[in-house]
Amino acid sequence: MEAYLRDGVYCSADGVPLTVWWDEAASPDGALRLVDQTRLPNEYVVATCDSLSSVASAIRTLQVRGAPAIGVAAAYGLALGARSLFGAAAPPPDTAPAMLAAAADELRATRPTAVNLAWALDRLLAVARETPLAALPASLLAEAHAVAAEDAAACRAMGELGSALITDGDVLLTHCNAGALATAGMGTALAPIFVAQRLGKRVHVYVDETRPVLQGARLTTWELARAGVPLTLITDSMAAHFMRHGGIRAVFVGADRIATNGDVANKIGTYGLAVLAQAHEIPLYVVAPRSTIDRSLASGAAIPIEARAADEVRSVRGVMLAPADVPVANPAFDVTPARYVAAIVTEAGIARPPYQQSLAALFQPRQTTRR
Amino acid sequence: MEAYLRDGVYCSADGVPLTVWWDEAASPDGALRLVDQTRLPNEYVVATCDSLSSVASAIRTLQVRGAPAIGVAAAYGLALGARSLFGAAAPPPDTAPAMLAAAADELRATRPTAVNLAWALDRLLAVARETPLAALPASLLAEAHAVAAEDAAACRAMGELGSALITDGDVLLTHCNAGALATAGMGTALAPIFVAQRLGKRVHVYVDETRPVLQGARLTTWELARAGVPLTLITDSMAAHFMRHGGIRAVFVGADRIATNGDVANKIGTYGLAVLAQAHEIPLYVVAPRSTIDRSLASGAAIPIEARAADEVRSVRGVMLAPADVPVANPAFDVTPARYVAAIVTEAGIARPPYQQSLAALFQPRQTTRR
Repeated sequence: MEAYLRDGVYCSADGVPLTVWWDEAASPDGALRLVDQTRLPNEYVVATCDSLSSVASAIRTLQVRGAPAIGVAAAYGLALGARSLFGAAAPPPDTAPAMLAAAADELRATRPTAVNLAWALDRLLAVARETPLAALPASLLAEAHAVAAEDAAACRAMGELGSALITDGDVLLTHCNAGALATAGMGTALAPIFVAQRLGKRVHVYVDETRPVLQGARLTTWELARAGVPLTLITDSMAAHFMRHGGIRAVFVGADRIATNGDVANKIGTYGLAVLAQAHEIPLYVVAPRSTIDRSLASGAAIPIEARAADEVRSVRGVMLAPADVPVANPAFDVTPARYVAAIVTEAGIARPPYQQSLAALFQPRQTTRR
Repeated sequence: MEAYLRDGVYCSADGVPLTVWWDEAASPDGALRLVDQTRLPNEYVVATCDSLSSVASAIRTLQVRGAPAIGVAAAYGLALGARSLFGAAAPPPDTAPAMLAAAADELRATRPTAVNLAWALDRLLAVARETPLAALPASLLAEAHAVAAEDAAACRAMGELGSALITDGDVLLTHCNAGALATAGMGTALAPIFVAQRLGKRVHVYVDETRPVLQGARLTTWELARAGVPLTLITDSMAAHFMRHGGIRAVFVGADRIATNGDVANKIGTYGLAVLAQAHEIPLYVVAPRSTIDRSLASGAAIPIEARAADEVRSVRGVMLAPADVPVANPAFDVTPARYVAAIVTEAGIARPPYQQSLAALFQPRQTTRR
């Protein structure tokens, strides 16, 4: 991926800020580069990961986050693992599959909820099964490139399809960060907003700060301001007030995993927003690539919800907010039942209820339109 | 008020932590003491206010907060103002009323939403109109004592009445801080919880952290833990998730102003909680003394909503969370329509819908029960 510095930020050729990208020049044989999102917005720092374990650590510590971006990072992480395992002194062929599976498991264990992570790893493992050992490092790197390129293309497609849901003058609400920083492209939930803006539609976006990790306050504000999209930062607790009094016309969120019935796991707080949106007759749109749909799950009840450290709630950036020993719950995600979701925007089309049918149809080969 | 140190915390004779109290020994002629709530839970610091302007500053900077506590503090602030204006060299009697009114206005301007502040000031001004100039300082101090004592008694009564709404084993949710730290007694919304616990009912309380000022994380956790009430601190965005999965049986909140139709102004986020509670068939109980009811207001639409500084949202305790120039909205309160309120617990009884009638009845002279 060619990276171009624009106003101090690495961008793709079409001006989209880069989040995770392969840099041939970063190391003797190339390395993964990623924007350290724990430092934004105060500092823009690009980290270099040249090993599987450094990628796993970056995912675990939220240096890279957002379901699609995690998938891309994990793909490169496994490619880096293969380079290390099978690059110079290759092991006996019969132990190689187990070694690669163990490497994939190290990445898989970093975050349990986002299905894109497992999806990307399984995709590389499938390639590995068809590839001779000597070609494995190159093949897995090529497949990681494909995962990244397809994600960027999916973001563009979601942006174009989703922009039809936005009309000139709309006031919108978003939660967490589902922009370029969450993907290898222009984002999921923010992509329709970026495209609508380019099409000349005026929008104003309320941004939930998204406690505890504040992806909205730190990342979404940074992205929208950079793109010149007018915004207002609010605390999560203000969303209902501005649904009632702020003229919010639609809610756009991403997803970490979607069950086949349309239940959506996303950042904690999404479920509450969805209930509030419905009470105010405001549509909630979920924007996510098809890789977010877990075709093995009948409903959201079986989605594992990651519980993160208590100190994320007790403190902010090292500053204690509460008594140091106070009991805390910190589920990183919640599940929104499909009945609260007005539409799911994917790169292959917009699914509407009933989702059982409409989501399945996204995976059917396209019908050629007869004229 | 006699204050007794218990485990390093000033308490009343019955063990309730003190928040605002008159200390005869604090200054040559006595002064107001208040727990500096901006320093909790990290530090327990008691400030001394011996002038109207120091009380006004303490209210403005949230060293003292909570509608009833603000009312008590303002009453003492006006008494201190009268002492300074009319103590030694009294002004001509014809200018005294205007001077006292100006002093009251300085306090009145500190916070616009909580009606208890204006209510307490008006009560002292009414006393002043009946009092000769020479007796004014003593009379206003006596009236401030009455305001404080009545608030403490009202808290006890609300606790006893409200405890009937709690059954053994209940899981409850509260927002902001409506405990002893918000009153001159044992609290409003937390009082029924404290009383229920003393009656042997086991409860578990989910505590919303309550961004932006984090009164839940900082103050409610501190109070509940001190009282031995089991609790779990959550971010505001988690409330819906735990309504669905955490077994929450009721929501208890305080109020800053209640209209005669039962619309309730309270800490920002209360309205969202109320909508979510109703969607989950969970009753939301508002606990507030009658002084919170603004009998001049037909509905909540006319309640002024205080907009506070943008940096309360952009930062926490001096640590920036968002780009320094990001546009922010920061309404400190919202209005919950009466249809979301299951009951309003006051010291004079529990009002149920329709509130137009039930709230008015709270101000009728008590009917003697005939046997």
